[in-house]
Amino acid sequence: MTTPLRLGIAGLGTVGTGVVKIVRQKANLLAARTGRPIQITAVSARTRDKDRGVSLTGYAWEDDPVKLATREDVDVFVELIGGADGSAKAAAEAALTAGKDVVTANKAMLALHGQELAELAEERGHVIRFEAAVAGGIPVVKALTEGLAGNEVTRVMGVMNGTCNYILTRMEDSGLPYEQVFEEANQLGYLEADPTLDVGGIDAGHKLALLSAIAYGTQVDFHAVELEGIQRISIEDIHTAARMGFKIKLLGVAQMTGRGLEQRMSPCLVPADSPLGQLQGGTNMVVLEGDAAGQIVLRGAGAGEGPTASAVMSDIVEIARGTRLTTFGQPAKHLEKAIPARTSAPAPYYLRMLLTDKPGAMAKVATVLGDAGISIDRMRQTQHDATAAPVVIVTHRTGRDALDTALAALPGTGVVQGEPVAIRIEDV
Amino acid sequence: MTTPLRLGIAGLGTVGTGVVKIVRQKANLLAARTGRPIQITAVSARTRDKDRGVSLTGYAWEDDPVKLATREDVDVFVELIGGADGSAKAAAEAALTAGKDVVTANKAMLALHGQELAELAEERGHVIRFEAAVAGGIPVVKALTEGLAGNEVTRVMGVMNGTCNYILTRMEDSGLPYEQVFEEANQLGYLEADPTLDVGGIDAGHKLALLSAIAYGTQVDFHAVELEGIQRISIEDIHTAARMGFKIKLLGVAQMTGRGLEQRMSPCLVPADSPLGQLQGGTNMVVLEGDAAGQIVLRGAGAGEGPTASAVMSDIVEIARGTRLTTFGQPAKHLEKAIPARTSAPAPYYLRMLLTDKPGAMAKVATVLGDAGISIDRMRQTQHDATAAPVVIVTHRTGRDALDTALAALPGTGVVQGEPVAIRIEDV
Repeated sequence: MTTPLRLGIAGLGTVGTGVVKIVRQKANLLAARTGRPIQITAVSARTRDKDRGVSLTGYAWEDDPVKLATREDVDVFVELIGGADGSAKAAAEAALTAGKDVVTANKAMLALHGQELAELAEERGHVIRFEAAVAGGIPVVKALTEGLAGNEVTRVMGVMNGTCNYILTRMEDSGLPYEQVFEEANQLGYLEADPTLDVGGIDAGHKLALLSAIAYGTQVDFHAVELEGIQRISIEDIHTAARMGFKIKLLGVAQMTGRGLEQRMSPCLVPADSPLGQLQGGTNMVVLEGDAAGQIVLRGAGAGEGPTASAVMSDIVEIARGTRLTTFGQPAKHLEKAIPARTSAPAPYYLRMLLTDKPGAMAKVATVLGDAGISIDRMRQTQHDATAAPVVIVTHRTGRDALDTALAALPGTGVVQGEPVAIRIEDV
Repeated sequence: MTTPLRLGIAGLGTVGTGVVKIVRQKANLLAARTGRPIQITAVSARTRDKDRGVSLTGYAWEDDPVKLATREDVDVFVELIGGADGSAKAAAEAALTAGKDVVTANKAMLALHGQELAELAEERGHVIRFEAAVAGGIPVVKALTEGLAGNEVTRVMGVMNGTCNYILTRMEDSGLPYEQVFEEANQLGYLEADPTLDVGGIDAGHKLALLSAIAYGTQVDFHAVELEGIQRISIEDIHTAARMGFKIKLLGVAQMTGRGLEQRMSPCLVPADSPLGQLQGGTNMVVLEGDAAGQIVLRGAGAGEGPTASAVMSDIVEIARGTRLTTFGQPAKHLEKAIPARTSAPAPYYLRMLLTDKPGAMAKVATVLGDAGISIDRMRQTQHDATAAPVVIVTHRTGRDALDTALAALPGTGVVQGEPVAIRIEDV
């Protein structure tokens, strides 16, 4: 096997440039590890004349990624353009139709069109690999597809958006409110052009949908992910949670339940001393739980040139070594759509509300909770002024329906000021 | 690809039984994930008549594992006998010679004979896979071989013997001395028949040697691992280290330096708030550092039926899917022996000694350290009685040679009672 593996790389931003650097600088190492040379034959990007800090000499240039994807001298089309549709998808489809394998970092494209693309690839005997689409440099797609292949996966969890974790940990450390830390993150260039992709949980939701498809052998279904962003997390909740031994994380959870497949990406409380609770700043963490392996925790950089390029390279090396895996760990044509769980599995909840300071106020709240079948584990009144008392309640395990019933009934008590905050406590 | 993959399993202890259970109970799932049925055709163990909690009906029985390994109806020989030599090695060699692939959990065999076995396998186009030999259920062999394939690995670290980590964390929690906790662990069945394999660092050293070979593309060389066990770790050191913000771990470190390949398995201090420092009880953790990926931390169960069987299954699935990897990530015949580093890389050290309580004692110690070129970062005198004062020193980064010079000179001061304790502080 001394035939070179020839790459066509579309998209020369941070990640694309990182891949070019690795291919150039580690030619001997890569050839030793794969048994064949890995070469770039052609590249494509929006702007040709731009100093990227790496030479593109010797590579053919294509303005059109679709043309790049279908070139005779390309074996693997490396899609680093981004975006769910548009030229990324057109070029990936063209590559697969023209008999190429595809390596991509595009979580949006796969979360929305992964099933269709996987079927297209597998009908033709080609592969799509996407290690870089989930949790940057952490080899979690491989860990799940290969490492846990002998397991029924019982739960997948993850903090998979570094920007959100940066904002939440920075709020706690600095005591600054969300709006101000958001602005800081923006200044630092941590946010996507459309920041809702980050803080609205969409980007992390894409990643969860991909892991979920592999874990449960179902069609990837981003629209079934229950999404809630971090925009409404207040510094009060972060500090109150901390005093009770918890951290607030934008946590993805996917689990197959008797009621269907549950996929959530939402703020959750986790114990401060758990691996997830200890995760600081922009780092990512994925927790995989299998019936045989138990709990496996993976932690690493979720973004950036080096880590993401490392993940792209791992897929390129896989293909160079002759490994041919199905996109989602099972033939795509056999995957079925999962029935989405109507509500999330029961859990304890954190409730914070402002009570009018008059006799019997707490009794009224307790009665509403009790009537909904919710029992109280812990309660604390955090401070006290003349007119109102902030109260925090940790409930015992309760269904989301019961909680919603109680939340709907609380205003009727006449003692709750404003809207109560309710955040799920995930048992990690 | 509907030809079944036929397994011959030798060794029906905890792990072997676990593998049989998974193959029986998850036949459909495994077939869906690999595209072909996985079947057990024959088994072998020391005792035939024994209730293992799983039916062996339908499997041929062989008393001799070599016979099992060479049966016509076996495609993959699953070696779960254990032991570096003896029947495990004889059967693995027989299997490879007879045209079978080998899946093994045998770290001792591979750490001592891995190069020879890999050459034998690769000459004949067969594979040896050993995910279960390192860190149980954590897919670290795959993470390193595949996930980091585009990286120069800069360092590999790991807490890879759950028994030692159990003993060290239990000593800290209970305040009991080593001997008593060792006895407890023995009663609980946590120790190997020869406990030196655990507490002497040998078992963990085998694992480190395997990871090191993959990471640096060198021949596996267990004899080059600098080994030190936990037998001399005192409760005083654990408590003193804790007061200074450290935990003591049996830590494996492999790194390629300008002076050669450094492989150490020895007690080290690590910051209490680092992922390694936070690791409690029998859990394992491996830290992989690559020039592109940065630091990746993997955490999970390092032993036990489920986790180890899960790792064995991941290798079986890999073979069933048609993936053919070289044993150590590069063709064995191209691997060279690494030059072992003569001494370990410079590091800060923790020193604890008992000083005779007389004027100028501390000055004498400081002079010895200064003469050896060692500067002091922090010092504390932990308690004080009429005749002697325990003193703890954290040095700045220093070479091992300088440290040894100082340790050799300390008795000559006439103020140091007994032998000083010196433990490396690893920068994790």
